[in-house]
Amino acid sequence: MKQIAVIGSADDVTGVVEEMAEEIGRGIARRGAVLISGGRTGVMEASCRGAKAEGGLVVGILPKSKEQANRYVDVAIITDMGDARNVLNVRSADAVISVCGGAGTLSEIGLALKADRKVVALKSSGGVSGMLAGKTIAGKTILAAESVEDALKLAFE
Amino acid sequence: MKQIAVIGSADDVTGVVEEMAEEIGRGIARRGAVLISGGRTGVMEASCRGAKAEGGLVVGILPKSKEQANRYVDVAIITDMGDARNVLNVRSADAVISVCGGAGTLSEIGLALKADRKVVALKSSGGVSGMLAGKTIAGKTILAAESVEDALKLAFE
Amino acid sequence: MKQIAVIGSADDVTGVVEEMAEEIGRGIARRGAVLISGGRTGVMEASCRGAKAEGGLVVGILPKSKEQANRYVDVAIITDMGDARNVLNVRSADAVISVCGGAGTLSEIGLALKADRKVVALKSSGGVSGMLAGKTIAGKTILAAESVEDALKLAFE
Amino acid sequence: MKQIAVIGSADDVTGVVEEMAEEIGRGIARRGAVLISGGRTGVMEASCRGAKAEGGLVVGILPKSKEQANRYVDVAIITDMGDARNVLNVRSADAVISVCGGAGTLSEIGLALKADRKVVALKSSGGVSGMLAGKTIAGKTILAAESVEDALKLAFE
Repeated sequence: MKQIAVIGSADDVTGVVEEMAEEIGRGIARRGAVLISGGRTGVMEASCRGAKAEGGLVVGILPKSKEQANRYVDVAIITDMGDARNVLNVRSADAVISVCGGAGTLSEIGLALKADRKVVALKSSGGVSGMLAGKTIAGKTILAAESVEDALKLAFE
Repeated sequence: MKQIAVIGSADDVTGVVEEMAEEIGRGIARRGAVLISGGRTGVMEASCRGAKAEGGLVVGILPKSKEQANRYVDVAIITDMGDARNVLNVRSADAVISVCGGAGTLSEIGLALKADRKVVALKSSGGVSGMLAGKTIAGKTILAAESVEDALKLAFE
Repeated sequence: MKQIAVIGSADDVTGVVEEMAEEIGRGIARRGAVLISGGRTGVMEASCRGAKAEGGLVVGILPKSKEQANRYVDVAIITDMGDARNVLNVRSADAVISVCGGAGTLSEIGLALKADRKVVALKSSGGVSGMLAGKTIAGKTILAAESVEDALKLAFE
Repeated sequence: MKQIAVIGSADDVTGVVEEMAEEIGRGIARRGAVLISGGRTGVMEASCRGAKAEGGLVVGILPKSKEQANRYVDVAIITDMGDARNVLNVRSADAVISVCGGAGTLSEIGLALKADRKVVALKSSGGVSGMLAGKTIAGKTILAAESVEDALKLAFE
């Protein structure tokens, strides 16, 4: 089974970004892939909700305990490793889709490129995804997606 | 869903130990729990095969890549963290069942006790499980199981 | 004692970037701080060489073994944790100075901002340091240094 | 420079165990080696105090922040990785000396054996060191030391 990660902020996100994340989660599940995520709030929760709504399998890579998982997480991986868990989020994925995001997401994009994972950034979602979409870093390009459909297409092709 | 880890050696194991590990995997899946394991060979593979035979969900916490997973792993968590992944094996579990095992298993038993996870050691399986079954370390007891059935009962109660 | 990290590429770097990294290492040691670095080649080695030339103490956070350390490392921390060691590089530092760099450096900048460490990027060194110098990510600014002297001043003030 | 780790409980220890740990720290520094430790209280602090009294260099591998270090730590490595830092304690050492200890120390002994580090357990110090001194696990023996002098001799030879 393919495993696709959605990365982005744990903070409250605007309605539009939340809808994008949910739609991406739906698309991942509809294509038969496992969703890998940080398993918590914000962009993570929206993508998990989308995947679950389509009957997908949802993995949450959590900081400390099962109790931190949002209600859509099926498998809880407890790391107790602070930000080192970011490595797991991206290494466990065949491709990574980035939605908005801040410093944590920035580190995940770097770690994903380093691990030679495909990184797709949703340009219109803002944050570091908007900032880095289309940029090339040491010969590796962060693919710019113009829409949710485009992001899914790039991640799965 | 409950998550139960089976820990033990990646090396070739004797027929009896392999059967025990497979039976434990079967029992975990029959009780509706997710199997967490290192996802590779030896005791790990036997327990995964058992869980899969009963239609269970199998998570493999792998060192480097999906390719290292045995064929029964459904969800592959790639750590690229050497033995630090042992922390994930035990923290992600509600209870840990130990079968035979060497130095790696010893570290996982220590990490599980430290994390206040229930540890059940199958006494007759030998290795560090045989050595530590029933022992108390800094006030925490490694529960001694006399049989596979006993190990499952202790892990789930 | 203050601890300052220098981050940047392990790859061969141009003469100018190498000189910058060496000068930064010198400046860190002259100000009585410990140099934290990945302990290997490229920017890391140049900064270690500089610190050592001024009698500084050099810590190398290494991937696998002591043998990977460049000859200027005094204390070798062996992680066996792949890119998760990037967390250690930046968390162990009071401030982080970024010189040129690719995907790994990008992840370290993200991890440093997340950990609320001061990040100073040497603008003229190119790479991700040039790309991100002066940028603000989720309310946290990567300080832009116009020169080595400026970078040291920003890191220590 | 050689790097020797002293592992053992962070909890209050009895006067005798504390003296042993301090003496081991002194011996490590007198032999010109760097002391690697968890950098905190109990056995860790006693060994750091001993090393410092002899002018040694003391590295503390800390869980969260510099503030957790005891006053004898020269170089603070901040991990923010929970028990995964145990991997660093033992991998960074050429040899590991175990004094008393509980579940955390048990995990470190397992991780050290797995990494093919020499492990010396001070038999009379009790805890897991007393329990495992002289035991062989999967072909690897935990060396039993009868005294502090013996432990140092075994670690350095």
